Amino acid sequence: MNIKIEKLIKQFAKLPRVGTRAATRIVIGLLQDKTGRAESLANVLLDASKSIRPCSQCGVLTDGEICEYCLDDSRKNGQLCIVRDLSDVLVLEKSGVFHGRYHVLGGLLSGVNGIMPDDLNIANISARIKNENVGEIIFALPNTVEGKTTQQYIISLIGNAAITFSELASGVPLGGDLDYIDDGTLTLAFGGRKKL
Amino acid sequence: MNIKIEKLIKQFAKLPRVGTRAATRIVIGLLQDKTGRAESLANVLLDASKSIRPCSQCGVLTDGEICEYCLDDSRKNGQLCIVRDLSDVLVLEKSGVFHGRYHVLGGLLSGVNGIMPDDLNIANISARIKNENVGEIIFALPNTVEGKTTQQYIISLIGNAAITFSELASGVPLGGDLDYIDDGTLTLAFGGRKKL
Repeated sequence: MNIKIEKLIKQFAKLPRVGTRAATRIVIGLLQDKTGRAESLANVLLDASKSIRPCSQCGVLTDGEICEYCLDDSRKNGQLCIVRDLSDVLVLEKSGVFHGRYHVLGGLLSGVNGIMPDDLNIANISARIKNENVGEIIFALPNTVEGKTTQQYIISLIGNAAITFSELASGVPLGGDLDYIDDGTLTLAFGGRKKL
Repeated sequence: MNIKIEKLIKQFAKLPRVGTRAATRIVIGLLQDKTGRAESLANVLLDASKSIRPCSQCGVLTDGEICEYCLDDSRKNGQLCIVRDLSDVLVLEKSGVFHGRYHVLGGLLSGVNGIMPDDLNIANISARIKNENVGEIIFALPNTVEGKTTQQYIISLIGNAAITFSELASGVPLGGDLDYIDDGTLTLAFGGRKKL
């Protein structure tokens, strides 16, 4: 195979959810396209890679100094929802379930992958608590070992008795059939059962 | 969502085998990466989009005038294998089943998608037959209506009694369990049954 095409396929294959086979198809599709899609994608990506950075306040990816969520005065201060990355913010925004402020970590603590507290957007949580008069911190992190480790680390770092910490409920998803639910989720759902 | 990020996600979502959800994950992963993967991917893609074009002889994507397969003197002239695109060439090369010359159409005829003979690399097949003394044309096109239509069109265009036309055999794949094979394939396998 041509070396430039091979290099391009390797780069695409490194993207999340894209393997070598899909990357080959993507690259050939792009290069074969006569409407200039490859060049257009490259230019949009180059522009974004130069201008997009985390919001200096909350960590959401944006192309200004402060993101649209922090600038939005209709959002209430007082509740801070801690999430892993922008995709979690998008999911929560789509659901319309939360109208407070976000704080994006940009990842989760992970010994295996060598991700330490300094790699994440953790340091300025304390400052935000003071400045925004935060009364509740809601953890909306993945229900995994890494999510729980990160949550525990942040709680121990803040350790402020005046703040309520909460996390999303665990249990059977809406429409969930018990047949298809794993043992871990069932155990959590049993432990957290509600009196009727 | 930030408009630049939205634009980028839309571009990625148009790629084959990538939907909006995967595109969101890819874009956030790229923009969050601190090692400059986004910029590097954009540059490799930009370079390829400018230098890669179809080989003037066979249509394989390459960055020179003539591709590596056409330049390779160890390949035999006389057999021309007609394929849809570069990914088919890669599959055949990996299998080591063919050592002749390739001819890449760059697509298939399709009324629905408005792909006409002029959009494909068909016109110079006749010239190649003469120049390379082709005795057999092997169609390795997808076993679909579009593949068969394209094949028939090319045969009618050449219509040369001195040339043998052949196509890949249809039937039960190696290791294929009859339980899992569709009716169309079974019908082809029955019709093409071999005497033992």
